[in-house]
Amino acid sequence: MKQRLFAPGPTMVPEDVVQAVGRAPMHHRSQEFKELYREVIANLAYVYQTEGHPMLFNASGTGAMESCVANLFRRGDRVAVVVAGWFGRRWRDIAKAYGLEPVCYELPDTDGTDPDDFGKWLDRQGKVRGVLLTHCETSTGAFHDVHAVVQRIQDKDALVVVDAITSLGVHEVKTDAWGLDAVVCGSQKALMCPPGVSSVSLSRKAWKAVETSDLPKYYFDYKANFASAEEKSQPRFTVATSIVAGLAVSLRLIREEGLEQVIARHVRLGESTRAGVGALGLRLFSKSPCNAVTALLPPDGIEAEKIRAVLLKEHGIRVAGGQGNLQGRIFRIGHLGYYDRGDVLTVLGALEATLRTLGYPVKSGSSVHAAQEAWGS
Amino acid sequence: MKQRLFAPGPTMVPEDVVQAVGRAPMHHRSQEFKELYREVIANLAYVYQTEGHPMLFNASGTGAMESCVANLFRRGDRVAVVVAGWFGRRWRDIAKAYGLEPVCYELPDTDGTDPDDFGKWLDRQGKVRGVLLTHCETSTGAFHDVHAVVQRIQDKDALVVVDAITSLGVHEVKTDAWGLDAVVCGSQKALMCPPGVSSVSLSRKAWKAVETSDLPKYYFDYKANFASAEEKSQPRFTVATSIVAGLAVSLRLIREEGLEQVIARHVRLGESTRAGVGALGLRLFSKSPCNAVTALLPPDGIEAEKIRAVLLKEHGIRVAGGQGNLQGRIFRIGHLGYYDRGDVLTVLGALEATLRTLGYPVKSGSSVHAAQEAWGS
Repeated sequence: MKQRLFAPGPTMVPEDVVQAVGRAPMHHRSQEFKELYREVIANLAYVYQTEGHPMLFNASGTGAMESCVANLFRRGDRVAVVVAGWFGRRWRDIAKAYGLEPVCYELPDTDGTDPDDFGKWLDRQGKVRGVLLTHCETSTGAFHDVHAVVQRIQDKDALVVVDAITSLGVHEVKTDAWGLDAVVCGSQKALMCPPGVSSVSLSRKAWKAVETSDLPKYYFDYKANFASAEEKSQPRFTVATSIVAGLAVSLRLIREEGLEQVIARHVRLGESTRAGVGALGLRLFSKSPCNAVTALLPPDGIEAEKIRAVLLKEHGIRVAGGQGNLQGRIFRIGHLGYYDRGDVLTVLGALEATLRTLGYPVKSGSSVHAAQEAWGS
Repeated sequence: MKQRLFAPGPTMVPEDVVQAVGRAPMHHRSQEFKELYREVIANLAYVYQTEGHPMLFNASGTGAMESCVANLFRRGDRVAVVVAGWFGRRWRDIAKAYGLEPVCYELPDTDGTDPDDFGKWLDRQGKVRGVLLTHCETSTGAFHDVHAVVQRIQDKDALVVVDAITSLGVHEVKTDAWGLDAVVCGSQKALMCPPGVSSVSLSRKAWKAVETSDLPKYYFDYKANFASAEEKSQPRFTVATSIVAGLAVSLRLIREEGLEQVIARHVRLGESTRAGVGALGLRLFSKSPCNAVTALLPPDGIEAEKIRAVLLKEHGIRVAGGQGNLQGRIFRIGHLGYYDRGDVLTVLGALEATLRTLGYPVKSGSSVHAAQEAWGS
């Protein structure tokens, strides 16, 4: 059976990317790899919409998140954290692990951030050294309007640190124009590459904070990593060259399509998926759905894990379940990266059949019809 | 021109491994990946010669080294470090970055550790919480006899932490039998896989030390990573699934060949390479050469970097240069992992031709003859 990945990372990747990953490994100090590395950094800057030079780490996105905390702050620093799901909690936990003092703006998992309410809350917290945000909360499918939130931060000294792991290449992330100080991404999401490397973009203000940080780090040390990348066009340590080779190809594809078109495609992916599941009477888990992943409540009387199991077994389609407290309560359809109209129709067609198999009344074709209409011509 | 990698990592990898890496990415929470992950951990334990369960990290070997420091020690802990090259210095620098107090047993880069001398030195240092060792010092081509060194450590409370990144699968590393508390390896060395993941094996004593460590960590947190691997047969965070898929294949190949045979093959690789370069009158840099990489001084009047350049340009062969203070002073032929007699003859044949091109008198065939003799039938 044809196997298809509809998880919010790892995602399906283009054949050209798979082939680049599957070449004999390059040496990480070769001229060939240097050129590739420079190209990857330049094309990441394009996706990040920054004049800066993003750094690449041989680590998952969580490692890159940790690098922000370890490099930008000092022990005891107060940081504000928006906590509205699994990944907001991760920011909080990393901050705690490093002896920072996180003050948390806690939201129900179903909600996106209300910028005004957040702004008022933040004003009451007194001085904070940083604000740690999640752009798309992958665990709930929620979009948090980072741009609007940032405009409500009065204290211009606070560093704005954004987990854009699932949003970069899906939603607009204007790193420089919005004044984001640190933005994190991973390779295996909208960047259409297998997992293995992650990236961080830093503002000038963030680089100043690096100078005063007193937290221990070596592998993720920004100054040393940046110096190697800038002066030698080389990673500081041996990196997953195969994955970087894949990323080089996938970033070229993003440039060819054009970032604006890529983001517009994700608007359609999100809207048509939501139209399709809406036609089936399914309810979105989040009140503020993002275009990277659609989180759904199962119909009454049908288990989310059953839906996932039938989709996988009968249709070769892997969607994600809930994480942590949401395990068994929701299922999530990823559509970030290398996905198009055909993929939306495919997953909805399989979902219709799956729900019918599980005894839920479905008007055959209703969801694909709605999705097709929403997609437009 | 046929391209060949003779660097001490990344190394050449078997075609089956390349193909496994180049498959469409698996989901890291799939049943298929769980089974692969369990197999990889079990086969790593075989290579580590341990009853324990090595942990896998999506990071280079340096990240895994840092994980040892962050998880096993406390701020201010005194640790003894053998410093005899680039990677011994790395142990020292990581220890310093985390606020430990390294006391260094410094050797000339050309030397291996004399176990007796080290033992006497250590006895004079008073109490240390750990001893940080490098098994093969990749930067100098030196073998340090970790087994003999460990037998000279009187203080049985001190944790023995070994960088076996370039030695595991080359020399004997009897993790349990020798009482090694933490042993680090990477995927891109003798394990015959592209770079991207690294591993750490821990003793019971080390696990006890984890309980009392007060240093900040999150990504590399041993308890959380081990719990995920043990309880769920899953990596804690998204991992480079493509690289793990490659590692599964390469570890199977190591099991098929048998660890004893693999180590015996590396003895031959080391001895025949040394016999070959000896016949050319080249001098080894290290007085204590290892079987992973042969570090050589260029003949008088010929630059090491010239030799490397001609090998690459005329013969498609990439050997490594010197690192740090040894840059330009030596060149290093890697022969760890997927290498055999034919590879030794190939690199020596090219080296003969290269030296002749650069004006060094070579008796044609002398090095390949010597290597062939040393290899035996």
